[in-house]
Amino acid sequence: MAGAPRPGGRSAKVRAAVLGAALAELVDAGYHGLTLDGVARRAGVHKTTVYRRWGTRETLLLDAIRERAQTHVPIPDHGSLRADLFDLARAAIANLRTPEVGALVRAAVALAPHDPAVARAGTAFWSERLGVDGTVVERAVARGEITGTDPREVIEAVLGPPYFRVLVTGEAVSDAFLRRVVDRVVDGLPKPGRR
Amino acid sequence: MAGAPRPGGRSAKVRAAVLGAALAELVDAGYHGLTLDGVARRAGVHKTTVYRRWGTRETLLLDAIRERAQTHVPIPDHGSLRADLFDLARAAIANLRTPEVGALVRAAVALAPHDPAVARAGTAFWSERLGVDGTVVERAVARGEITGTDPREVIEAVLGPPYFRVLVTGEAVSDAFLRRVVDRVVDGLPKPGRR
Repeated sequence: MAGAPRPGGRSAKVRAAVLGAALAELVDAGYHGLTLDGVARRAGVHKTTVYRRWGTRETLLLDAIRERAQTHVPIPDHGSLRADLFDLARAAIANLRTPEVGALVRAAVALAPHDPAVARAGTAFWSERLGVDGTVVERAVARGEITGTDPREVIEAVLGPPYFRVLVTGEAVSDAFLRRVVDRVVDGLPKPGRR
Repeated sequence: MAGAPRPGGRSAKVRAAVLGAALAELVDAGYHGLTLDGVARRAGVHKTTVYRRWGTRETLLLDAIRERAQTHVPIPDHGSLRADLFDLARAAIANLRTPEVGALVRAAVALAPHDPAVARAGTAFWSERLGVDGTVVERAVARGEITGTDPREVIEAVLGPPYFRVLVTGEAVSDAFLRRVVDRVVDGLPKPGRR
């Protein structure tokens, strides 16, 4: 994994070029067709740069998806749990629906049972990412909107149903659906005589 | 798709043998290695029987997963929405974790964007299945436990998070996790000053 190079520096530019090339190469060549040599060629950098800095396909793709999530799925802070969860889910699903992230996630789902390196990279990514996403829940607890609850599991409750649609059932994920998912997570099911 | 043969009859036995062989062949040969000839050989039936009755790999696998869900994920009726949702989720996840269903679902996730027949079969299966699963929600509305709500979306709220764990994050799905998922779906998030 690369360190945290100065943004805008030469090192940061190389990193951005390589991570972008990794996702593009994944879409074009498929998971098993992706090689560090191919990524280096596409990024216009020397292959030893890629080997030295990332070493394996899994490390490279883990770094690429991490970077991608950071830039495409920012952590909202609207002062409202509902608004924050909605924005987060919307951005996460838009990201999942891009060819690059779609290809990576679907390949990981198919390969994880047979390839421990893929399984480890996926679990590492989500372990970090659910912690970051959980910030919106922690802030809601701090504001007194809700009382203590597991922030990661709230994020899983919000992302689970639209991920299930995109990956498994193939049903459409509209903004209206995402609003209903968020409302259901916050409010639960409607009970008789409670308004 | 096969009709509804008399259970226990010769036709029913052939059907069960072929559907079982289809899932076993999927695990051994992979999605692209599965052929109707191979399934017929494994089931010990003539290949024209398989071609005539199912015609394509997708039709055969759709019938196999439908049958499998019917037998492995029965619709509970405990007189309690919480108990029913828990049982349903537990059986669905146990089924997903078998090698046969795991292989089928993961292959479908990977192939659906590139193969319309796979996407259609997946959507057809889930459209039926969420309707069947939704019975437990309809019964809860009829009993007055909850008021009207979309039954399918309640099932998606319950299955989404554990599917997300099994397929995407790789985190463990314990009974305790499933109980928290069900409680969150029914109750929503804990609010201050509400008990």
